[in-house]
Formats: sequence, C-alpha cells, structure tokens
Amino acid sequence: MIGLRGDTWLYIGLGCGLASIAAALGYYRWVVRQDAGSDKAQEIASWIKGGASTYLKKLYSALFGVAIVVGIILAIVFSGGVAGDASYPLRGLWTALAFAFGALCSTLAGYLGMSIAVQANVRTAANCKASLGQGFNVAYKAGAVMGLAMVGVAVFGMSLLYLIFHDTEIVLGFSFGASSLALLAKAGGGIYTKTADIAADLTGKVEIGIPEDDPRNPAVIADNVGDNVGDVAGMGADIFDSYVAAAVASMMLGASYASTIGVQYVILPLILCILGIVSSLIGIQFVRVGPNGKPGRALNSGTIISCIIFSAMGAILFGVANAVSGEVVLNWGVLIATVAGLVIGVIIGFTTDYFTNDEHAPVQQVAKVSASGTGLNIITGFSYGLVSMVPALIGIVAAILVAYFATQAFGLPGVYGIGISAVGMLSLTGVIVSNDAYGPIVDNAKGIAEMSHMSEDVIADADKLDSAGNTAKAITKGFSISAAALTVLAMYSAYSEVIMKYSGASNFILDIQDPLVLGGIFLGTFVPPLFSAITMLAVTRNAFTMIEEIRRQVKERPGILQGTELPDYNACVGIASTGALRSLVLPAFLAVILPLIVGFVMGPKALGGFLGGSIFIGVALALLMSNAGGLWDNAKKYIEAGNLGGPGSEAHKAAVVGDTVGDPFKDTAGPSINTLITVMSLVSSLFAPLIAQFHLFG
Amino acid sequence: MIGLRGDTWLYIGLGCGLASIAAALGYYRWVVRQDAGSDKAQEIASWIKGGASTYLKKLYSALFGVAIVVGIILAIVFSGGVAGDASYPLRGLWTALAFAFGALCSTLAGYLGMSIAVQANVRTAANCKASLGQGFNVAYKAGAVMGLAMVGVAVFGMSLLYLIFHDTEIVLGFSFGASSLALLAKAGGGIYTKTADIAADLTGKVEIGIPEDDPRNPAVIADNVGDNVGDVAGMGADIFDSYVAAAVASMMLGASYASTIGVQYVILPLILCILGIVSSLIGIQFVRVGPNGKPGRALNSGTIISCIIFSAMGAILFGVANAVSGEVVLNWGVLIATVAGLVIGVIIGFTTDYFTNDEHAPVQQVAKVSASGTGLNIITGFSYGLVSMVPALIGIVAAILVAYFATQAFGLPGVYGIGISAVGMLSLTGVIVSNDAYGPIVDNAKGIAEMSHMSEDVIADADKLDSAGNTAKAITKGFSISAAALTVLAMYSAYSEVIMKYSGASNFILDIQDPLVLGGIFLGTFVPPLFSAITMLAVTRNAFTMIEEIRRQVKERPGILQGTELPDYNACVGIASTGALRSLVLPAFLAVILPLIVGFVMGPKALGGFLGGSIFIGVALALLMSNAGGLWDNAKKYIEAGNLGGPGSEAHKAAVVGDTVGDPFKDTAGPSINTLITVMSLVSSLFAPLIAQFHLFG
Repeated sequence: MIGLRGDTWLYIGLGCGLASIAAALGYYRWVVRQDAGSDKAQEIASWIKGGASTYLKKLYSALFGVAIVVGIILAIVFSGGVAGDASYPLRGLWTALAFAFGALCSTLAGYLGMSIAVQANVRTAANCKASLGQGFNVAYKAGAVMGLAMVGVAVFGMSLLYLIFHDTEIVLGFSFGASSLALLAKAGGGIYTKTADIAADLTGKVEIGIPEDDPRNPAVIADNVGDNVGDVAGMGADIFDSYVAAAVASMMLGASYASTIGVQYVILPLILCILGIVSSLIGIQFVRVGPNGKPGRALNSGTIISCIIFSAMGAILFGVANAVSGEVVLNWGVLIATVAGLVIGVIIGFTTDYFTNDEHAPVQQVAKVSASGTGLNIITGFSYGLVSMVPALIGIVAAILVAYFATQAFGLPGVYGIGISAVGMLSLTGVIVSNDAYGPIVDNAKGIAEMSHMSEDVIADADKLDSAGNTAKAITKGFSISAAALTVLAMYSAYSEVIMKYSGASNFILDIQDPLVLGGIFLGTFVPPLFSAITMLAVTRNAFTMIEEIRRQVKERPGILQGTELPDYNACVGIASTGALRSLVLPAFLAVILPLIVGFVMGPKALGGFLGGSIFIGVALALLMSNAGGLWDNAKKYIEAGNLGGPGSEAHKAAVVGDTVGDPFKDTAGPSINTLITVMSLVSSLFAPLIAQFHLFG
Repeated sequence: MIGLRGDTWLYIGLGCGLASIAAALGYYRWVVRQDAGSDKAQEIASWIKGGASTYLKKLYSALFGVAIVVGIILAIVFSGGVAGDASYPLRGLWTALAFAFGALCSTLAGYLGMSIAVQANVRTAANCKASLGQGFNVAYKAGAVMGLAMVGVAVFGMSLLYLIFHDTEIVLGFSFGASSLALLAKAGGGIYTKTADIAADLTGKVEIGIPEDDPRNPAVIADNVGDNVGDVAGMGADIFDSYVAAAVASMMLGASYASTIGVQYVILPLILCILGIVSSLIGIQFVRVGPNGKPGRALNSGTIISCIIFSAMGAILFGVANAVSGEVVLNWGVLIATVAGLVIGVIIGFTTDYFTNDEHAPVQQVAKVSASGTGLNIITGFSYGLVSMVPALIGIVAAILVAYFATQAFGLPGVYGIGISAVGMLSLTGVIVSNDAYGPIVDNAKGIAEMSHMSEDVIADADKLDSAGNTAKAITKGFSISAAALTVLAMYSAYSEVIMKYSGASNFILDIQDPLVLGGIFLGTFVPPLFSAITMLAVTRNAFTMIEEIRRQVKERPGILQGTELPDYNACVGIASTGALRSLVLPAFLAVILPLIVGFVMGPKALGGFLGGSIFIGVALALLMSNAGGLWDNAKKYIEAGNLGGPGSEAHKAAVVGDTVGDPFKDTAGPSINTLITVMSLVSSLFAPLIAQFHLFG
C-alpha cells in the first residue's frame, strides 16, 4: 500500500513543499549575489523596485482588509456547522482560517516572485555583458524562484490543512482564499500595467516625442513596475490558484466517492503534485544556454524533460503501489487521465504558439495587411484570434473524453478522471511558471539596458532573451486557460456532489432543457464579457488620469524634458496603484456576489447553469483575448525587425495601434478570466451547503 | 371551437398570405410609379440596379445548384421513410420538395425586396425635393414591400404544406430550405457589401484622394450594390428564416404533445402569424411623417401600434375561442407567453438602441476617447459592445422564464411556451422588416442625391431620413438576435422530441455534467467564432483582389480619373460577387456538415450539447458584433456632425478606423450568426430520426 491510505504522503507533501521553498530561497540568494552592473543601471532598477513596493504595499493592505471581512463572514455563516451537519462546532472558524491561510500563501508566493524579479532584471542585463548564457541563467533562476516557491507553498498548505482536518471542505476554504487573492492581484495588476503602458506611450511617443523607456517620461517607472506587478505577481497568482483549485476539486471528488473506491484517491491529487515538484526540480537543472544556444529551445527542453520524468514517475508509482499491495489500489485509468491531461496541455501550449509566433502565417498575415490600414490589422488579428480557439477547444474536449472514459473503463467514476487530468496538466506548474516569470524579467532587463545606455551587444543579447520570453508566455497562457477549464469542470462536479449531500437528493441533473438551468446559462454568459469590459474600461479611464498628471509635471517643471530634473515617478505609480485598486470593486462583485445571488434566488440548478455559461464563454473569450493580443504584439515586433517597411512605415503605425488594442486584451482582461471562473466555481461550492438548503425558487 | 381543430385556419392562412403578398405588390406598383428624378440620377440608379442583378443572377444560379444537390440527398436519405416509420413511401421526395419550396419562397421574398429597393432609392431622393414626408413615404412603402412579401410568402407556404401533409416534419423541410438559403444570402451579401465598401474606401479616399460615392471610383457601384444585397436581401432572408423556424418549432412541439393537450396547439403558431400579418397591415398605415415630422418617431409608432393591436387581437381570439367552446381550448398561459415574447422583444430592441444611439453615453464616450488615439477608440467601443450583451441576455432569460412558467402554471408543457414566445416576438415581422428595409433605401437615396449633385436641402432631408434608418436597423438587430435565440431554443426542444420519438427512449436528458454533452458544448462554442472569422477574413482577402483591379483600371485608363471615361463598374461587381460566393463553401460546411458529423459520430447527446454551445456563444457574439459595429459607426457620425473637432480632426481619423473595424462586425459576421445557429438547429432536427438510430458512440 506504500502508505496510500494513511497520512504518510501528507508528511511527504509537507517535506516536499518545504524542500521546494528551500530551493526557491537558494536560487533567490544566488541571484541577488550576481553582479548588479553600473550605478546608473542600479539607480533605474531601484526606482522600479521602489515603485513595485509602493503598489504591493497598497494592494496587500487593501487585500488584508478584504480578507478579514470575508474571513469574518465565513466564520459567522458557517458557525456551528451547516444545518444537518453540526459535527463541527468550529467549522466557521476553521474555514475562515483556511481562507486566510490560502490568501497568505498566495501573497507570499507572489511577493517572493516579484521581489526577485525587480532585482533580477538589472542583474540579467549586467550579466549579458559576460555572455548570453550567463544572462539567461540569472533570469531563468529568478523565474524558478517564483515557480518553485509557488508549488512549494501550495503543496505545503494543502498537506498541512488536510493533515489537521481530514476534511476537503476546509481545504476548499484554502483554495478560495488563494483564488480570491489571485483574482484581485491579477485583475489589479492587469489594470495597473496597461494604465501605465498606455499613458506612457500616448504622452511619451505621441505628445512629447521621446522614445519608449526614456527616463524623462514621468510614467516610465510606473510602466516598468507594471510589467512586474502584472506579469510576475499577477500571472503567478493566477496559476497558483488553478493549481490549488484543481487539486482540491479532485480531492473533493475523491472524498465523495471514497466509501466505494477507496480513500487513496482523496490524496492522490496531492501525490501527483509531489511528483510534479520533484520532476520540476530535476527538469529545471537541464535548462541551460550555451554561448550560441537558443533560449527558446532551452526553455522548451525543460518542459519536455520534466514531462517525461513526471510520466515515468507516475507509471512507477502506480506499478509499485499495485505490485506491493497485490491489488489495484491505484487505478490505471487514472494514470491515463493524468498523462492525457499533461500531454494535451503541452500540445495546446504549442498550438497557441502557432498563432502568436512570427514564424507562422497568422502573425505574418496580420503584419502584411497592416500596410493597407489599421482597420485591416484589427479585423485580421481579431479573426485569427477567433480561429485560435479551435485547437485549444478541441484539445480540451479530447482531454475531457479521454480522462472520463479511460477512468470509467477501468471502473472508477469518470468525473474523477476529469479532475485528475487537470491536476496532470498543472503538475508541472513549477517548470511552467519558471518559464513564464522569466519573460517579464528579461523584458525589464532589455528596458534597463536601453535606459542605462549599455553596449549594442548587450542590448542585442537582451533582445534575444526577450523574444524567447514571449513564446514562453504564449505557451503558458494556452496551458493555463485549458487547465482552468478542466479545473472548473472538476469543481463543477464537486459542486454537484455537495448539493446532493446537503439537499439529500439522490441525483442532481443540470439538463440544458430545464428553463432554470438554461436561464442560468444565459445569465452566466454575460459575466466574463462584462468583467472584461469593466477592467478594460478601467484601464482607459485610469490612463486618462495619468496622462493629465504627466502633462501637469511636464508643463510645471520644464527641467524634466531637458533632463536636468527628475520627474515625480511616484505620482504616476500612485495613480496607477490607486486606480487599479478602486477598479476592482465591481469585478469582485461579479465574481463573488453574483453567483450567490443567482444561487440563493434561483436555486442550485440555475447556479449550476450560471457556472456552466460563464465557463463556456469564459474559456472562449480568454483564448480569443490572450491569443489575439499576443498576435498583434508580435506582428508589431515582426515589422520592427525590418519586415514590410520596418519601423516608421505605414504598416508599423497600423501595427502599433493593433498592439495598443491587444495590450489590455492579453494583459488585463484575458488572463483574469481563468481566475474569475475559478473564483465563481469556488464560491459556489463553498456556499453550496447553504444554497442546497435555502433558495427562493427552483 | 371557431375551427381550431380543423383546417379552417389553414385556409385563412392561405388567404391572409396571399393578401399580404397582394398588398406588397400594390405598394410595389405605387412606388415604381413615383417620380424617378433627373436623367443623371436615373443613370446612376440604373448602374446600381444592373450591378445588383449581376450579383443576384450569380447567387441564385449557384444556390439553385446547391438546392438541387441537397434536395436529391434529402430525397435519397429519407426515401421510403425512416426505419420504424415507413408510413410514407414518398417521405424523401416530399421533404426534398418542401426544402426546394422553402428555398424558392425565401428567394422570392428577397428578390422582390431587392428589386423594389434599387428602384425606390432614386425615387426617394427625387421625392425629397417635394418634401421630407413624401421622400419618407416612398422609402417606407418600398420597405413595406419587403416586409409584407416576406410574411405573406412564409404564411402561405407553411399553411399550404401543412394543409397537404398534416405533418410538421415536412414543414421542417420548408424551414430548412428557407434558412439554408438565408444563410448563404446573408453571409454572401455580408461579404459582398464589406468587400466593396473597404476596397472603395481604401483606394478612393486614401490612395486616389477622391470623396466617398464619387462615380470616378470603379468600386463605387459595387459599394452601393452592396448596401442592397447585404442589408435588404440579406437581412430580409435572415428574419424570414427566424420567422419560419419559430413557427415550425412551435408546431412540432405542439404536434408532439397534441395527443394530451389538443391538436389546436399545432396550428396556433400559424394563427398567431396570421394575427401578426393583420396587425402589421394596419400598423403600417399609421407610419407617416408630416412636413416637420420626425422619421424615427414615425417608424417607432408603427411598431408600437402594431404591438398593441396584436395583443388585443390575441386576447380577443383566446377569449372568443374559450367562450364559444365553453372550455379552455386556448390556454391563457400561452397568451402570456406570446405577449411576453413580443413585449420583451420590443424592450430589447430599444435597449440595443441605447448602446448605438449618439444621444447616450456609450457612443459619446467612444467619440471622446478617439481624440487620444485609435487604440482607445477600439478598446472602448469593444468594451461597450461587451457590456451591451447584458440587457439583451437578461431579456432573453426573462422571456424564457415567463414563457415557460406561465405556460406550465396553466397546465401546458413549458417548452411549448418558449416556442410560442419566439413566435410572439416575431409576429410583427411585417412591420419590423418594413422599418429595417427602409434603412438601406434611404442610405442609397442619400448616395444618389450626392452623386447626382442634388440641392443642399434635398441632401439634408435625405440625411435626416438616413439617420432614422440607423436606429431602426439597430432595433431590428437586437430584435432578430433575441428572437433567433428563443427560436433555436424551441427548435432544440423539438430536436429532443424527435430523438425520443425515433430512439424509443422515454426521456432525453442533456446534463451538462455528461462528458459527451460537455464535449459537444465545447466543440459548439468554436463554431460561431470560426464562422465569423472565416467570413471576415474573406472580406479582407476579396477586398485585396478588388483593390488590385481598381489600381489596374486607374493606371491603364487615365481618362477615368479625369472624368472623361466611365470606369468598368462591372469588373468590381464581378469580383465582389464571385469572391463572396466562393467564400461561402467553408461557412456552409460548418453550418450543415459539422453538426451531422458530431451527431453521427458522437451521438445525439453530444449533438445536443454541440447545438447548445453554439447557441450560447452565438447569441453573445452576435450581440457583441452587431452592437459594437453600430456603436463605432455612430461614433464616427457623431464626430462628423461637428462634435469633438468634426471631420478631419484626429478624433475623426480614429473614428474612421473604428468604423472600418465595425463594418464587418455588424454587416458581415454579426447578423449571419443568427442564421447559422438556426440552420444548425434545423439540420439537426431534420436528421434527428437518422441520428437517433445510427451513431458510433454515446
């Protein structure tokens, strides 16, 4: 049995989580000890670091307040246990604490990643002076800090809570805490980064006529801070939340079937996470770039190697467990579901790359039509964005069907397989996030290299590192959206199980033809679009405020443009921070309160439909926005690389507009949608016991 | 019983259909007898007329071929009746003939509307010389030709077929024929019109530097033809198809419940259509504009009056029928569903107007941000487009819930109520289409007034008529999308009934949690986006071909630009026609073949999910594209009216790009999506007997 039915693996989880955190801290120490370059470069980096701290301080104090309020609500609502399940006198308190712990873990992982990112950027630039490989190494190790810290904290947290309570519904509180924080961090970061980006571009390049990343622009530091808060802290929090939610949903499904299929399936998701951590730790060692090496290939090789190691370890685990115990304790169908999830995730990641990489037709086509006008650039890019949904959606369907029917064919409930395939897809989060966090670090490194006037060679090297980062980012997005889709589907089944448990019904059917389900679906379909619109409109509104501040500074203090006086960077950082946080109120309402209103008024079936509707449209919209955004960005870069007339041509002007449109698509709205649907699913599952017992209709 | 259980009402339907057609022909004769203006104006109008004929000839000969092939397939597939239902030896033949008849009726209505539109445009311009009211009268009567011909042909066709066969599945063939043709006409027209529009704009305004609607531009006639083939023929065919499908779906539901609820509910949808025709005929009489009257108000008053008349007649019918027979032969819940559908349709239409009318915040906001760059125009317009889904979706949900529960509360199956609410929403199609067809006529009238250098007063009057047309168009779109949503939902239930009937199952549950249903849904979610992308990419591709032709003509024959030589308008008309028809192959595949593949391979449940997924995302996408497109268009017009710097300002340039993006959104992809999901639902229902008996999995 190799401890599958006891607490052994939970202790291993604690240890493995701590080991991963230790490895992250080790890399952290290594990175900060690297050469930080010239005084000028360090000064610029210190501004970025300062700006990032300002934002994080504001964000976390606001979130701290929110967490306390939500925690108190949870503690009260669930106090004395739910009616019919009064076994826990302190259930409310434990749920609240688990929520706070989840929020804290998510914060910690994001903070650590951000903190290393703002130190690694200048060091990457400085080390590019020595060699491309050395620069790469610094950036990648810094990325690995984020990746390893995240999975370490997540596995440690889940193992600890389950070890204490042996109740998956408490672990659900942890997941809800992590996801709520992730949603706010991601959406807030997304609004922040594009506010600063658009304001800096529109005033700098257009009005004042100074180049991008020029230190005379008061918004330039806010812009660089934005890359970190949006991409590093935001994306990190995003995958953290899917990772935890996938494991928790599968654990809940395992728990609801435990009496018939065995308790080992409750902790199997955690075991798979542990294998994933080990595979990631090994895979990361293989990511190296020689003097003439290709950074993109190095990143991909890490993913592929980890993937192979993980699959092998999974097969060995299942084989050994079954051999030792002389019976099938770990169902082979589940292994198929796991590996199918992982492999399909990788395939989806790479097909996403097809639509956003300038080596293929879509980007080139968009660049080509740009010469005939901005309108065609937008229409064509948007159309390819729509087409880009197709492979990912087919992949998701393949994962659903393989996972379900493989698990069912081997005698286990198929829905458990869907949950496990999400866990499989996300098992290599350690590596995936490392690759992803690398992106904004090298992006910033390039900015610093330019701002501090480093040599041409260094800038060229930084540029090479940067373009590999874009591909890694595209792959991660395809990956994270698909994984979120499978995760919320598993969470969906978990929701049904909870409803059945507390309503006493023997089945819970969500028939599309049922008017309440159907009504719920149609209501659900407007949530992700409305959420996207609110965040994007917040960007344009906040950018306007910042533009006014920039104009004021430039007008009142002429020394700024002459380069004799430093602009007040903090004013812009402050506008972006405050604006982003204020803009989060409505999105948070949509994510948390609206599902509860639908549930308590229209009943559990309507809420089931509502979640379904938001998932169906959310996945499609997230794919569209992320891919179209990446495509526009790379079409611009393709022209800037000298194609179709190069910089300054009519094609370039059109492509710049396309990029401006794509920015909030891919960095504000698109990537938050995953987290939105995860939070909606989590809050529904968490409140399902109450909804099952009280609702007006349905 | 006032004939509710016999064929009386079918004969009334035949008569009423013929009366409506006769009224349409009467208006036709009246319009063509009006003053056609100067020779110059008539010459320009004759070019447009000629170009339209060229396109229609190509379209209808291609469609004729398609119809014959599809007809033969239908005749063979259903030959000898479906297994287990061999009662019809000639079922295949009848289905094929009904299909051909539906296609013919749709063609006839489209042809008549188009034929009057290309004659009414110049007459409207000429009559504006006399007074605004007289110009309005010509344009509106011409619009009424289309509106009345359509409903007349539809009701005549359905009554005739049901009278002969008393089998709703044969009438389904009629609906499939109408919708297939509508899809091709709508998508083809949408591609045609924007190909010509973009090519004319990009070469004319940008390259050559001549104004819009300048006769020296070789693409100008194709552009004007496009307004007619896209908006008149296309939109007419679109609503025709929803109208028929809604009635047929409700008839099928009525038939499947007839043994328990009574046969009168089978023909009730037809009776409601008859009442709608009568209300429309009366309401149209009230649409008049005085010397200083407002065209927009006149259009709306026609809608409101018809709405009141229809509701009153409905109430009287139900009251009399129940009083005469001394029992409840017509369920009051059904009346509530009917009126709810109609009222909610009108409300959705008017809320759509909020997002696209320049008197409200969205259009003004988009215009305002345009001053700061094209990117902000696009982002803001797109965001408001996303927001605009919300009221329409809430309205659809309200209609679903009211219709279902009202019908159920009075003891009838709720799904029948959903179908009937779609019929109610579409009952005033006669008036709605009249208002809508008015739009492109006055648009063309304005173009002709400008091209033939009529006086300032006349152009100003034509402009007034035109802006009322835009609002009417926005309302129709909101209306038609919502109606299509309810229609396909009713068709959906009809599909389930057919599956149950032929598979012998006692229930057919489409549980979202069933992996086949879920897989089907996710596959369905990519169909409307992919369809939209294909049609939009066809526009840009064909526009490129036409741009090359324009350049060739202008280069080889310098007389064209000097105004001494006429350009070869027909070459551009030919490119737009051929290009549009060629681009229809893939969309047709998506609409017709893909559902069959999903059905025959993955089974009826997966197909049910597939239809659901395409409906959920299709409704949202159609709302987004239509509304965002209308919004961008009106933001441009708002600036052109002198706001925010007026024509030539930076804001105007940005708004022009927004309009270019919005054009294929609102005129190519958006409005075809309704028809796409209708065709998918129809083909599924039609082949459901075979799918129920044969499929590989599921």
